[in-house]
Amino acid sequence: MSESGFARLPEPPYHVVIFSSRRSAGDDAEYAATAQRMFDLAARQPGFLGIESARDGAGFGITVSYWRDEAAILAWRDQPDHAATRAHGRAHWYDHYEVRIARVERAYRSTPAA
Amino acid sequence: MSESGFARLPEPPYHVVIFSSRRSAGDDAEYAATAQRMFDLAARQPGFLGIESARDGAGFGITVSYWRDEAAILAWRDQPDHAATRAHGRAHWYDHYEVRIARVERAYRSTPAA
Repeated sequence: MSESGFARLPEPPYHVVIFSSRRSAGDDAEYAATAQRMFDLAARQPGFLGIESARDGAGFGITVSYWRDEAAILAWRDQPDHAATRAHGRAHWYDHYEVRIARVERAYRSTPAA
Repeated sequence: MSESGFARLPEPPYHVVIFSSRRSAGDDAEYAATAQRMFDLAARQPGFLGIESARDGAGFGITVSYWRDEAAILAWRDQPDHAATRAHGRAHWYDHYEVRIARVERAYRSTPAA
């Protein structure tokens, strides 16, 4: 994640994983530390392009991670530490989540990214 | 937006507009009222499927709106009230924003939506 929160991406096409979730009551410090560790791990994966994330005060959040292609998404899904963390998260961190995987076809922005 | 914050969507394929933005300092009450009005207006557009949105305490937010096809996205872009509101928002509400338009190819969830 860039300092401003925006991902710097190449021109489309590329792929995106849209992860929307509602946090359950739980250990926010452990969650935050693990989320940061997963961001850092994702950023080292082949084909990783960028990530953006926002969570509101009520615990509803959206994370979008961008990838070169479907193969990069599948490799990240199967990365052992990530897979184990997802299993832990399903059991402990989320009341509910939705995942949508999409191919980005066009993109634009307001101004050059700050 | 459903009560829980999650969009109830049909099976893919469908399309998504991913809007990530950083709010500038400004009139939060006017912004919130206008955002709600735009949600309500979008929900009446042909081809609208659902919307999810989260903004963190620092003003970084992600809104994903889901649409039947590209034609529905273009019709919403050109809806006069929405177009005027976007122009106002560019000038007054956002330091920066990014828009990515994608075709959702697969989707899954943790459990039946609450």
